[in-house]
Amino acid sequence: MPVNPDTMESAREVIRRCRKLATFSEDAGRTRRTFLSAPMRDCHREISRWLAPLGASVTTDAVGNLRAVFPGADPRAPRLLLGSHLDTVPNAGAFDGVLGVVLAVALMESLAGRELPFGVEVIGFSEEEGVRFGVPFLGSRALVGTFDEALLRREDARGVSVRQALESFGLDPSQIPSARLENDVFGYVEFHIEQGPVLEDLGRPLGVVEAIVGQTRMAVTFVGRANHAGTTPMHLRRDALAAAAEWIVKVENDARREQGLVATVGAVHAVPVAANVIVGEVSVLLDVRHRSDDVRAMAAARMMDHAKEIASSRGLSLRQGVLLDHATVPMDRFLADQIEHAIRQAGCEPHRMVSGAGHDAMILAERVPAAMVFLRTPNGISHDPAEAVLVEDVAKAIDCGLHLLTASSLLPGRPCRA
Amino acid sequence: MPVNPDTMESAREVIRRCRKLATFSEDAGRTRRTFLSAPMRDCHREISRWLAPLGASVTTDAVGNLRAVFPGADPRAPRLLLGSHLDTVPNAGAFDGVLGVVLAVALMESLAGRELPFGVEVIGFSEEEGVRFGVPFLGSRALVGTFDEALLRREDARGVSVRQALESFGLDPSQIPSARLENDVFGYVEFHIEQGPVLEDLGRPLGVVEAIVGQTRMAVTFVGRANHAGTTPMHLRRDALAAAAEWIVKVENDARREQGLVATVGAVHAVPVAANVIVGEVSVLLDVRHRSDDVRAMAAARMMDHAKEIASSRGLSLRQGVLLDHATVPMDRFLADQIEHAIRQAGCEPHRMVSGAGHDAMILAERVPAAMVFLRTPNGISHDPAEAVLVEDVAKAIDCGLHLLTASSLLPGRPCRA
Repeated sequence: MPVNPDTMESAREVIRRCRKLATFSEDAGRTRRTFLSAPMRDCHREISRWLAPLGASVTTDAVGNLRAVFPGADPRAPRLLLGSHLDTVPNAGAFDGVLGVVLAVALMESLAGRELPFGVEVIGFSEEEGVRFGVPFLGSRALVGTFDEALLRREDARGVSVRQALESFGLDPSQIPSARLENDVFGYVEFHIEQGPVLEDLGRPLGVVEAIVGQTRMAVTFVGRANHAGTTPMHLRRDALAAAAEWIVKVENDARREQGLVATVGAVHAVPVAANVIVGEVSVLLDVRHRSDDVRAMAAARMMDHAKEIASSRGLSLRQGVLLDHATVPMDRFLADQIEHAIRQAGCEPHRMVSGAGHDAMILAERVPAAMVFLRTPNGISHDPAEAVLVEDVAKAIDCGLHLLTASSLLPGRPCRA
Repeated sequence: MPVNPDTMESAREVIRRCRKLATFSEDAGRTRRTFLSAPMRDCHREISRWLAPLGASVTTDAVGNLRAVFPGADPRAPRLLLGSHLDTVPNAGAFDGVLGVVLAVALMESLAGRELPFGVEVIGFSEEEGVRFGVPFLGSRALVGTFDEALLRREDARGVSVRQALESFGLDPSQIPSARLENDVFGYVEFHIEQGPVLEDLGRPLGVVEAIVGQTRMAVTFVGRANHAGTTPMHLRRDALAAAAEWIVKVENDARREQGLVATVGAVHAVPVAANVIVGEVSVLLDVRHRSDDVRAMAAARMMDHAKEIASSRGLSLRQGVLLDHATVPMDRFLADQIEHAIRQAGCEPHRMVSGAGHDAMILAERVPAAMVFLRTPNGISHDPAEAVLVEDVAKAIDCGLHLLTASSLLPGRPCRA
């Protein structure tokens, strides 16, 4: 199906706008825009400038989320949230998060004032990446009412607390409860780049996210004995790196054998660091994800059994600790079906998939039906200046979004969960 | 054979003296005595105090080696060098190097003025570990005439050159050539802790070193692609750490299969360091040692072939570089035989072995017949405050040294090589 020339032009404008927002940065020459940083103001100002002609009422809530409400034909009708996050990692690309907000603005522009039977709120979350305060999803947590007092006391690397950061930005922390969603919202839809290679590998522009997978993160340390690399015969060594290597190979083999399982060993720290010393201690992090919580738990347990066996057979000791244990969050089945239908109407073959990464939709899902659309990510590259999207894919995403918003079935009089 | 009570007392004194020297340190509470550091003066003063009653002429040569010459019965007879180094690594034990010097002093004390048919020079090398200037063997290089101008220009971490360090210590760099050995030396014997577990594993106090093994050191880097740990399926990864792990297991297997081969992968550096990112690049150092240069070269080549195969099969690229390629240095066969005989006379079963670590004897061997005696090292621990020797082993070493020095066969009128 050929793409409408207006939609192509709109897609080009979306990409231009994402690249413009990428210039609002804390770092010269690269993009870094963390929670409540000075360039976030410029970002808000720019987006507000795009929203101004569309007649939305634009506000910044008490945690710094940019919120633009478009009332529906019936002012009492509930509204649909459309958006993503505006913060970035250091040395970021131009599309992670930002694309979902800019695309929502483009959808409202494309509607050209056409009234929908429900309201729409375009939202740009202030924080999702967890860079500045080490805790992610600060923006979306406020919407579901889980932004608590303890979060306000967290400090960044310079000793500035979340509370101080909010106040310096001109926000009133005591008003955070009023950012919470009322029961007038019937869904949340987030467009986001896949940040992985799956859609590209399948040759499909768009995917429907069925679930955001659960995650186990373990800290694992092999403790052997540092010794002279020249004077210690092989059979008298307790080489912590050799033990860790044997384990990493087993972890990879396990993950390869189970469909949909991913397991990653990273963040290696080995001591001593010397050319002629056998490594005495190796610490790593193990990250295991699968859509089934049972499969994930069993896989992680089996991997830890391997670690114990390897350590024991080599005369090493093992330390381990669980850092994260998050269950899989299913997306709303009705919304996902609507999205799948809209992708087909846009002329694409949809791919039903899981998200291996966390997203604001996972937090929103605690209170409202939530769903996501993934855009193909060239080479799977993200969190990198090389991050990109294809203009044709953005055009398909706009088409899909318009079909979704104008579908007569989207607002079926279902009860609001919020 | 029971040890003579005087020898046991002498051994206890040797250990006390080593522990005393360990208190002369740059760091409070731990031992660190690098080349020409202030505590090296205290160390020289203390040893000179022990030497004073023995009638030796004590000097410090132009590179800071402490040298005490005991003439023989015939002043024209050549002399035997006895010693080791006085510098230490950071957080050192009390015996590495120091023991060989203190033991030489004890041997001269035990001789109690008895004249030998040859002279003896007790030597405490100023530098062996390579800590301060990144180049080892500065002391012994001067004796064999390989301490060149380029070395004088090297700088330590504070930007002080070797030349400046020598001058600050009150030494005259222009006199370094006069530290060179003349052709009046017939051998060098070094007592040293094994720094490995072999003698302990065999239950033997003393070993004769036949050779100091050659060494290959390679820098190896696996270059894959950093990617999101959650969104990248196993079959689309180029995980540099998984590749390195597969290789480390192969290197260890290869080394285990070849008698006397040791291979160590260490100094791991992996990036990015993040819990949820697949490692994109891993650099390691590979250290391979064997007494046969051919076996070593073939083993290193085979290991590098494995690295290439693994990188290629995983779609990674590989960078490699040779950092060191040292041939095996054989010790003098005549001196080693004499030592073996002396060990037997001391009532011990000698173990003929190779040294996996470099020693001053390796440098001296360029100009004079050189040999080493290893002392059993409890738990193989060295370069650590837990480094130790058994008093009975030190007594056996003294006994062995006395048998060696008084053997009628030691000075057979062989030509001097120096």
